[in-house]
Amino acid sequence: MAGSSPAITGIMKSVWSLHPQLAQDTVPLGDLPLARVLLANDANYPWLILVPRLPALVEIIDLEQSEQVRLLAEIDAAARALKSATACDKLNIAALGNQVAQLHVHVIARRKSDAAWPKPVWGATPPLPYDPAARASLIAALRRGLQLKPIDA
Amino acid sequence: MAGSSPAITGIMKSVWSLHPQLAQDTVPLGDLPLARVLLANDANYPWLILVPRLPALVEIIDLEQSEQVRLLAEIDAAARALKSATACDKLNIAALGNQVAQLHVHVIARRKSDAAWPKPVWGATPPLPYDPAARASLIAALRRGLQLKPIDA
Repeated sequence: MAGSSPAITGIMKSVWSLHPQLAQDTVPLGDLPLARVLLANDANYPWLILVPRLPALVEIIDLEQSEQVRLLAEIDAAARALKSATACDKLNIAALGNQVAQLHVHVIARRKSDAAWPKPVWGATPPLPYDPAARASLIAALRRGLQLKPIDA
Repeated sequence: MAGSSPAITGIMKSVWSLHPQLAQDTVPLGDLPLARVLLANDANYPWLILVPRLPALVEIIDLEQSEQVRLLAEIDAAARALKSATACDKLNIAALGNQVAQLHVHVIARRKSDAAWPKPVWGATPPLPYDPAARASLIAALRRGLQLKPIDA
């Protein structure tokens, strides 16, 4: 939990929990100091979701300035790791939250050949299951890039 | 140009220009220290676009860390001003850039009654022209909230 104040760490541990819809649609990669990092279960696009582990967050403007800066650093790290692991053509980064209110940030690797290009990915096409070996390889590359350990390890 | 280094300011003035597509789809509200603030010509959603005035930017990760933090502060200010001016239900914040590569960040006020809710706005419905008086009133409120002056003033 390097990088978090004791007060923040205490709050995180006491009351934060991942929204069930986000849990259902993703696999957890690990925890950065502020955010849990999830991989969306959709092989159409390598797609990370960062969820700050603080309770009752809806908007980025709900975060204090130091937390915003921390989140931005983690978005930057996630985007770099994703780009490195996928050699994508473009990154899409977004905090929408119209359907799941818990603050979460999408970091998506786009290719000009992908199923939705050049449109945004949301609702464009049904999720495509990953080949298990391909997913395991992607997860391993992303964990290396972000120095993440499995959450229950 | 408070908040920018002389070097940054010099680069901005020498070679940056707004992408023609962004210019066509918006009206300019003014310049924050890093980004030009635009209002999208679409009355379906009060919709700001922030464009950092630095050349050759495509991704947020192309910005140096100090520039990322500055951009985040301007996104925060834009989001607060937009929420205050519109009393919206949700903010949507996104850097996509699949169609217009020049780095730009969408800050959109969403209402549960709007034309696309709960879907993302891009491509959801044709742009709706503003009533001129309503647009002038919104622009005035946003300029007050962001302490922006018209660019040619």
